[in-house]
Amino acid sequence: MKAVVYKGPYEVAVEDVEDPVIQAPSDVIVRITSTAICGSDLHMYEGRTDAEPGITFGHENMGIVEEVGSGVSSVSQGDRVVLPFNVACGFCDNCRAGKSAFCLTVNDPGTAGGAYGYVGMGPYSGGQAEYLLVPFADYNCVQLPQGDEHEKDFAMLADIFPTGYHATELAGVKPGETVAVYGAGPVGLMAAYSAQLKGASRIFVVDHVQNRLDLAKELGAEPINFDDGDPAEQIVDKIEGYGVDRGIDAVGYQATARSGEEQPAVVLNQLVDTVRHTGGLGVVGLYLPSDPGAPDEHSAKGELLFRIGRFFEKGQTMGTGQADAKQYAHKLRDLIIAGRAKPSFVVSQELPLADAPEAYEKFDNREPGYSKVILQPNR
Amino acid sequence: MKAVVYKGPYEVAVEDVEDPVIQAPSDVIVRITSTAICGSDLHMYEGRTDAEPGITFGHENMGIVEEVGSGVSSVSQGDRVVLPFNVACGFCDNCRAGKSAFCLTVNDPGTAGGAYGYVGMGPYSGGQAEYLLVPFADYNCVQLPQGDEHEKDFAMLADIFPTGYHATELAGVKPGETVAVYGAGPVGLMAAYSAQLKGASRIFVVDHVQNRLDLAKELGAEPINFDDGDPAEQIVDKIEGYGVDRGIDAVGYQATARSGEEQPAVVLNQLVDTVRHTGGLGVVGLYLPSDPGAPDEHSAKGELLFRIGRFFEKGQTMGTGQADAKQYAHKLRDLIIAGRAKPSFVVSQELPLADAPEAYEKFDNREPGYSKVILQPNR
Amino acid sequence: MKAVVYKGPYEVAVEDVEDPVIQAPSDVIVRITSTAICGSDLHMYEGRTDAEPGITFGHENMGIVEEVGSGVSSVSQGDRVVLPFNVACGFCDNCRAGKSAFCLTVNDPGTAGGAYGYVGMGPYSGGQAEYLLVPFADYNCVQLPQGDEHEKDFAMLADIFPTGYHATELAGVKPGETVAVYGAGPVGLMAAYSAQLKGASRIFVVDHVQNRLDLAKELGAEPINFDDGDPAEQIVDKIEGYGVDRGIDAVGYQATARSGEEQPAVVLNQLVDTVRHTGGLGVVGLYLPSDPGAPDEHSAKGELLFRIGRFFEKGQTMGTGQADAKQYAHKLRDLIIAGRAKPSFVVSQELPLADAPEAYEKFDNREPGYSKVILQPNR
Amino acid sequence: MKAVVYKGPYEVAVEDVEDPVIQAPSDVIVRITSTAICGSDLHMYEGRTDAEPGITFGHENMGIVEEVGSGVSSVSQGDRVVLPFNVACGFCDNCRAGKSAFCLTVNDPGTAGGAYGYVGMGPYSGGQAEYLLVPFADYNCVQLPQGDEHEKDFAMLADIFPTGYHATELAGVKPGETVAVYGAGPVGLMAAYSAQLKGASRIFVVDHVQNRLDLAKELGAEPINFDDGDPAEQIVDKIEGYGVDRGIDAVGYQATARSGEEQPAVVLNQLVDTVRHTGGLGVVGLYLPSDPGAPDEHSAKGELLFRIGRFFEKGQTMGTGQADAKQYAHKLRDLIIAGRAKPSFVVSQELPLADAPEAYEKFDNREPGYSKVILQPNR
Repeated sequence: MKAVVYKGPYEVAVEDVEDPVIQAPSDVIVRITSTAICGSDLHMYEGRTDAEPGITFGHENMGIVEEVGSGVSSVSQGDRVVLPFNVACGFCDNCRAGKSAFCLTVNDPGTAGGAYGYVGMGPYSGGQAEYLLVPFADYNCVQLPQGDEHEKDFAMLADIFPTGYHATELAGVKPGETVAVYGAGPVGLMAAYSAQLKGASRIFVVDHVQNRLDLAKELGAEPINFDDGDPAEQIVDKIEGYGVDRGIDAVGYQATARSGEEQPAVVLNQLVDTVRHTGGLGVVGLYLPSDPGAPDEHSAKGELLFRIGRFFEKGQTMGTGQADAKQYAHKLRDLIIAGRAKPSFVVSQELPLADAPEAYEKFDNREPGYSKVILQPNR
Repeated sequence: MKAVVYKGPYEVAVEDVEDPVIQAPSDVIVRITSTAICGSDLHMYEGRTDAEPGITFGHENMGIVEEVGSGVSSVSQGDRVVLPFNVACGFCDNCRAGKSAFCLTVNDPGTAGGAYGYVGMGPYSGGQAEYLLVPFADYNCVQLPQGDEHEKDFAMLADIFPTGYHATELAGVKPGETVAVYGAGPVGLMAAYSAQLKGASRIFVVDHVQNRLDLAKELGAEPINFDDGDPAEQIVDKIEGYGVDRGIDAVGYQATARSGEEQPAVVLNQLVDTVRHTGGLGVVGLYLPSDPGAPDEHSAKGELLFRIGRFFEKGQTMGTGQADAKQYAHKLRDLIIAGRAKPSFVVSQELPLADAPEAYEKFDNREPGYSKVILQPNR
Repeated sequence: MKAVVYKGPYEVAVEDVEDPVIQAPSDVIVRITSTAICGSDLHMYEGRTDAEPGITFGHENMGIVEEVGSGVSSVSQGDRVVLPFNVACGFCDNCRAGKSAFCLTVNDPGTAGGAYGYVGMGPYSGGQAEYLLVPFADYNCVQLPQGDEHEKDFAMLADIFPTGYHATELAGVKPGETVAVYGAGPVGLMAAYSAQLKGASRIFVVDHVQNRLDLAKELGAEPINFDDGDPAEQIVDKIEGYGVDRGIDAVGYQATARSGEEQPAVVLNQLVDTVRHTGGLGVVGLYLPSDPGAPDEHSAKGELLFRIGRFFEKGQTMGTGQADAKQYAHKLRDLIIAGRAKPSFVVSQELPLADAPEAYEKFDNREPGYSKVILQPNR
Repeated sequence: MKAVVYKGPYEVAVEDVEDPVIQAPSDVIVRITSTAICGSDLHMYEGRTDAEPGITFGHENMGIVEEVGSGVSSVSQGDRVVLPFNVACGFCDNCRAGKSAFCLTVNDPGTAGGAYGYVGMGPYSGGQAEYLLVPFADYNCVQLPQGDEHEKDFAMLADIFPTGYHATELAGVKPGETVAVYGAGPVGLMAAYSAQLKGASRIFVVDHVQNRLDLAKELGAEPINFDDGDPAEQIVDKIEGYGVDRGIDAVGYQATARSGEEQPAVVLNQLVDTVRHTGGLGVVGLYLPSDPGAPDEHSAKGELLFRIGRFFEKGQTMGTGQADAKQYAHKLRDLIIAGRAKPSFVVSQELPLADAPEAYEKFDNREPGYSKVILQPNR
């Protein structure tokens, strides 16, 4: 089959690779109809991880079930399914608690969680290819209506829509509350969108890229440009009281200060100032225990200067971590089917698989208009 | 009346001061029967805060209602009451949410929370005296059975029992779970005791003072001496899996490493290692946004090198802040009355008010056997 | 002052009565700008309760603070406030738990909860008058922005908007879920509206009055006319699976079967059939422990033939009771201010106080177009 | 193999039957070491259900894994496991929500939930036999420590310990609260025991069989004999306030009044009187949608005269249904291993399989001392 293959830093190619085959009775093979490129794929693309040449990326996958293992009960050939990015077993302590991003079965002892096509997330190949092997298929497949309706929206169920929603869960967003989202990339926009679905009264979105801020405004959120001054101050000035109820970090450790300089803890610390006493912080922007390219030795070990003193004084809470996409995908799917959610507004391109190399290059260069690319391997 | 008066660093005296008088219709005056010295009083005693000479300490108070303001409905002269340390209004947004430690009415705009006899916590005098003025008395008084039964136990309801319990709430302790408590001082012991009341399966308590560890063991917890090696490793070695379900910080910023050197973030970071993926951290040990005596410039601003990378990778949550003592005091009182809780096991002395100067000195010197002192001003 | 006075069955008059005066330091007096007539006022109007002639009705009140007791801290003369219908103290066990509809202070021992101008709900006069006495004002007043904007929307915060919202809380509505609401009167419509604010995917509203069903449809809900066949079957036929996630009873004991005959348990039992296994029922339609006009002796004692066997087999849950309007009013207010909620779509008339007798008569006769009447005593 | 076979009303025999064989890749076969007789087995034994002669009972099973299907990942030959009574898939909507008693995969469309050896609960044979086939083994097996320690305690994890615990979850029991449990059979005692593990302050247990009440007292609960007068009144007289916080029904539809006459709703209605305003009811005693032996035509359809009027007036909540034993079994197991729970105090006999006919007869006759019988087929 054809697949996107990582050749080395800044290079991917579409090549012929071995077709996947059923290995365990609980496996299925899915013919991919849509597979999106994620901002986190760029970490590997840029060579800033331990990803070895030869692997296939792609953890935002959906398609049609092509072949079914003998031990699968609820999935049949021809079913249309989306695959939440977490590979998970469904029966370990964490999966049973809904924390499928931290499955204790699918990765090495002492670690938790797996994913398709991602370094360090287990031996699972990615879906930027014609076919994908899906283990523990009864658990990992989320059923979709037959046909091709909502294809772009459903593709968002594999990662960014549940990840944005997860951020609102971690922060504890409730109806009528005020919310600040740092970062207006696809995940930040999905967080703002999820806060709106949950009935937030006011939503502020912080960034400094104008077209991202424009998208936030179209959603009904209030854009805050951090080039115009301290974003915490800007937000607090706009509301009653001394801070918003909930704050979301959709940026992570590669945050930059207004000066343009990388300041890994700047968003976390601004959130402490932005959120009121007893409010909640939800952190889905990535922080890593090891970052070779960090600006200083402590950041390199994932140790950041966090304003814990102020955080404690305000009695805030913080929830973190990768999204348990599987936990949210079913209900978010139902909102799409009912016409109440349309997350595909962030999608900028739908391209054939052959265009992957060019798409990676343009996306990595942040070319205008390349916000969220979907590849369609079987178009 | 007689009261303990702060004279300056390392000096308190028992002196005659003005009797308190009713100022607002919602006030009552309480004749103090028991008032405990708290570890946090020592920060002021040692001159490491902005506390001005002349003030009276004491936020762990109970006694008999002596006089009642015209606007008080539910409290009568002669009632026996305990006063949770938070002075709070009962009707602001935070009080209505049960977060009485962050009352928006009783302190300056932009801050939250008040307390009796504590610097920065509003204009409320302390209870290490014969009488105490209690504002918003309908909300702040917790009724107790008449008589003198359980006096020492009830005195623990003003602060350390609810604070220990709060730690288990912040960490999310549920029946059957494993819990690690860092710090075996009075609050740490109360946290372990609360975890036990909630049905934890195993409780580890970390310290290096032997008699504190012995007390933890008597409770049924498993003592971990951090002088014997990395406490996270010691704990993880003793359990199934790769970490306990819940971790509690009852130490705060004055944590010391094994070497004896002050390392403000050492407990927080050990907790990250001690707790499993998706587990919860409850932080009641104090962290401050400003600490003039800190070992370095960042700590002085309450910015600590926190292992956020590992914390995020493990998908942990953290809850922090002063305890909403009022929220828990009623049910903990009921456990004492029913004979199911006896928190007074931490009390080491009951002394007349006149002994306060000596008690402060010995407590501050960590003299053996001075773990928790109750003063009895009207004995 | 002028007030609506109950003269006897089917008769109210606007008469001069004594002005209210401050009685306790925690009282305020409010000059009423808007006060709505509630469907539950008709029980008294029709003479089917123990309400004595001479009382003034009105528990859906808002206005401007005219006079302030000496013990009030957070409310000032000139403040614009809405009064959630529950009179409550703010400091009893139930109020502290947010259950202000079950305040243990404001009514007789052994009962719980108070209200303005309602029989059996304590000695508090109603607000269908020029002025209203509000006890425990710090707790009972909800602050509004100065001016006259959103007057009709804010008036809905006293009862029906929080009551509809409460129904969704009792039923446990979460984003993406399906919801069935029985009853499309003002409360049922508010329940559907609240479910929508919370992100429900599909909402079914059951009634047989066409214009009510039309209003439900305008909201985006799916109308179900029970004259067209068993409503549970109609709903289950429209969805995936064997029942909706959540069901709401906004009808109560005066439910009628298709035949027109009163069948007090019909809605409860249809809900059991409408809701899936492990789903939740929220009951805000009124059920009474005593109903002299009931169709049989058991109903007269509030004992109904409930399908507990099927309810248990499905593992459902049920939450009931009057709404804790105070618990929800602040956040719902914020949604109105932010322009995200506009509950006044149910209001049909705004009338001067003098028109109250005619309004009661027409409302009681269910004259078309008399769905929700607001009286404006100081217009 | 040998198995207990149902021959017809009041008759079981130990006979040779076919050995179970692996049918699906996710199956395992377990050699039974302990299998308990449940009170609910007696419904079938007495011929009051549609159970056909020839089937094997037994849903409280544990043992050693003998054979493992090709699709099983986490269970190996030789593992010691207990099987929560619900047969469940682990991946349907209900299982993912932890509601494994309502699995949507293992039974007929429109129904929910399966069990071993129980009529109407799917095609799964029971474990009162030498061997048991376990479907979806990764999900349904709960791992135990090797060896034979705690055998009797672990056997209680299959049903009655989680069922008692479930009752406290449905009722919402929290630390410090007061709890009333109706019924002091094995499940009622486990509910009281679970309430104690969760830190309840006072627990009342209602029955009229003296030795059951004695067992409750030994646990630390307060026995209430309903032959001595209305149990609700007896309990309310013993406490502060007007009702306990939480009430549990561990009796079900075969409740009898003091007179000895069957009154299916008597316990439900007494619970309404026993529990305070806004309190919670947890119902695990069985109610059926169809009961041919009921005292009247409504009861025969599972429609009971429930005091909904009073229930609503008090704003109570009710949770019902079979226990999701799987959801609780792991943490309860950990409490047993840690020595903090010892539920085997209810076990009265451990007998070889051959004694099953006699055990059934004596248990059905309520012979003194036959409270909970464990059969040991491979002893």
